[in-house]
Amino acid sequence: MDSDKSIYLDHQSTTPVDPRVFEAMRPYFMEKFGNPSSHIHRQGVQANQALDTARGQVAALINSNPEQIIFTSCATESNNLAIRGFLNANPDKGKHVIVSEIEHYSILNLAQKLKNEGLKITVVDVDQYGMVDPEKVKRAIRKDTALISINLASSEIGTIQPIAEIASLARAKGIFMHADGAIAVGNIPVDINILGVDALTISAHNYYGPKGIGALYLRSGKRIAPLFEGGFQEFGYRSGTENLPGIVGMGVASELAQNEQKKRAKYLQKLGQKLWKGLENEIEHISFTGHPEKRLPGHVSFWIKYIEGESLLLMLNIKGIMASSGSACSSNLRGRDEEDLAASHILTAIGVPSEFCSGSLTITMGKDNTEEEVDYFLQVMPDIVQKLLGMSPLYDDKLRGKNPYAE
Amino acid sequence: MDSDKSIYLDHQSTTPVDPRVFEAMRPYFMEKFGNPSSHIHRQGVQANQALDTARGQVAALINSNPEQIIFTSCATESNNLAIRGFLNANPDKGKHVIVSEIEHYSILNLAQKLKNEGLKITVVDVDQYGMVDPEKVKRAIRKDTALISINLASSEIGTIQPIAEIASLARAKGIFMHADGAIAVGNIPVDINILGVDALTISAHNYYGPKGIGALYLRSGKRIAPLFEGGFQEFGYRSGTENLPGIVGMGVASELAQNEQKKRAKYLQKLGQKLWKGLENEIEHISFTGHPEKRLPGHVSFWIKYIEGESLLLMLNIKGIMASSGSACSSNLRGRDEEDLAASHILTAIGVPSEFCSGSLTITMGKDNTEEEVDYFLQVMPDIVQKLLGMSPLYDDKLRGKNPYAE
Repeated sequence: MDSDKSIYLDHQSTTPVDPRVFEAMRPYFMEKFGNPSSHIHRQGVQANQALDTARGQVAALINSNPEQIIFTSCATESNNLAIRGFLNANPDKGKHVIVSEIEHYSILNLAQKLKNEGLKITVVDVDQYGMVDPEKVKRAIRKDTALISINLASSEIGTIQPIAEIASLARAKGIFMHADGAIAVGNIPVDINILGVDALTISAHNYYGPKGIGALYLRSGKRIAPLFEGGFQEFGYRSGTENLPGIVGMGVASELAQNEQKKRAKYLQKLGQKLWKGLENEIEHISFTGHPEKRLPGHVSFWIKYIEGESLLLMLNIKGIMASSGSACSSNLRGRDEEDLAASHILTAIGVPSEFCSGSLTITMGKDNTEEEVDYFLQVMPDIVQKLLGMSPLYDDKLRGKNPYAE
Repeated sequence: MDSDKSIYLDHQSTTPVDPRVFEAMRPYFMEKFGNPSSHIHRQGVQANQALDTARGQVAALINSNPEQIIFTSCATESNNLAIRGFLNANPDKGKHVIVSEIEHYSILNLAQKLKNEGLKITVVDVDQYGMVDPEKVKRAIRKDTALISINLASSEIGTIQPIAEIASLARAKGIFMHADGAIAVGNIPVDINILGVDALTISAHNYYGPKGIGALYLRSGKRIAPLFEGGFQEFGYRSGTENLPGIVGMGVASELAQNEQKKRAKYLQKLGQKLWKGLENEIEHISFTGHPEKRLPGHVSFWIKYIEGESLLLMLNIKGIMASSGSACSSNLRGRDEEDLAASHILTAIGVPSEFCSGSLTITMGKDNTEEEVDYFLQVMPDIVQKLLGMSPLYDDKLRGKNPYAE
């Protein structure tokens, strides 16, 4: 039975916890359950040691130092902590902020809020591959530019940005440089010394760690303000009782990623290429999005002319295949379904006609997907596409020689 | 061997996860690992259902409705979201805020920050039992009072505050009323309709749920601003991918608390009374803190004249007994050890001479502590106290007829 299949190809939305990560976390729920703040007794001491170990593991993943790692509850919080935190702590550094047009909602919505508060925001556009041109960033820099934030990779279209080049521009001008590495760290090699950013967002659940835990790398000597007040945990940058099982899990997920990332990436590149070529050969009217080479391994994104992406996803789901349309967050506004179907800001940015923006698909494979699963996907896709084309009034117009997009 | 014992009497700092809670969470790490935002496929749908169920469970614990529950990462975040969130969303409601002098650090440090930003703060004092007098709150109310925040119970001294009375004063004046219920909810009966507050902080890890997850109850019709921006999760009040295993765990912990709270409280009251009476009979120079009746079940707090609390804790730890001095957060400023030994603001507030504030102990028992453990505690305490008195220069002064506290 088709419906018994369960093929998860939506690793950009979230990944399952690695069993080794889960096993490492397990004792911290019921046995070693202490609060790191209770450092006067055994349970607290144990908790502190676990916290230190995990901080070291996360630091090592990006070749940084433990005291540069601040644990947060998620990537969204890390993004806000970096940007809002820097601006609040450094009001004299200028009132101008540069972001790209294909950032995550946490960055774009924050930028909008900052704009409402009176800051000046420049949104740098991207090329047809969703790539930010460092030259454009350079031209956008003003005397009062305080901060630049560009994502390291786009979850929706997979493109990896030239962050090192942009960071070096920022450094030369004394501008604080943040990168949202939520979807990238743990999945591609990241060395903070090569990347050269001042702050980097890390998300555990995007590389087989648990949800509810993220981190922010902060370069030594840079000052940020906390987003909220409390008991001075995390060097005073992030108060609140530490999510210790989550932190332990993020630590082990980081160690595994450090050890296995190369092997995983090689494998995922192979799967990705197989899928890409298969689709290219089998599916008419398909257009791939994002950069063909500079992209996340195992990430294949595309749109198909005349076809609604949501319908495609629903039919894939019936066949046991889980994928996503647009970014996790745009297919994401629960209770706001009219917005779900709104054109993705990222696809619009790369020049996909807005009629097709709801027609895009993001397939993100993970380390445990198999070639057989790719084969199955390639096997069911042509029929689904054919069926949807048959239902498409746009395709019908086209067949009858009419321009389906004429006003 | 004494050192083989492991008796945890520090449930105010954190509690172990209930095995039933852990079992409920388990599938959400590796099997049902979906992102609730991916509601287009099975994993996402499953995640959404789990989120709804947990929201209902937390709501039921305080007799509220699911849409009034906002999941956060911890009580500290909830406290900040309530206060900062209300003030930011309602700038016209006045510039005056009332808190008590025995709030958690997250409230007191936020109040200090608000003061630095130009708001007016009144810190209401407490009586010798650490009790806030509603009359004093009433007198503190001004025309421009926007918000009152008082904790439902103090973790350090156990006193349960007359929140319903204070909330009714606030309601009569149209003032937003928040209560920090971090240590109380799940451990004492809380019915939001009786309590009458507009916002209530809930902390999962204080009632056998996991760390890394908390909630804020928000009365329908009240408006708050989020602390940070993102993908509009949690009705737009709290963005970021949901910590689903944590949320599921909080849900089940809430259901268990709802079903078992009465039984647990009865049992803990018995243990608490046994411990209190035993100490009263066995230990000279002991003074109990907090209200003798209106207090958290299983919570016993005290100070012993001439004795350093930290030394007492260390010697108890050697005997396998884990307790805390002051609040979790004041014994908590890691790397700031000089502050660890600073007088607790709460003990100072209830009139404990500052020489003894570092001498206080908080014993908080949990549902799994036994009478035998209380017996053991009562058995080892007299020897430890005797030993410490023998080492105390203050006690030596006293024995030699000198006033040890004369300047």
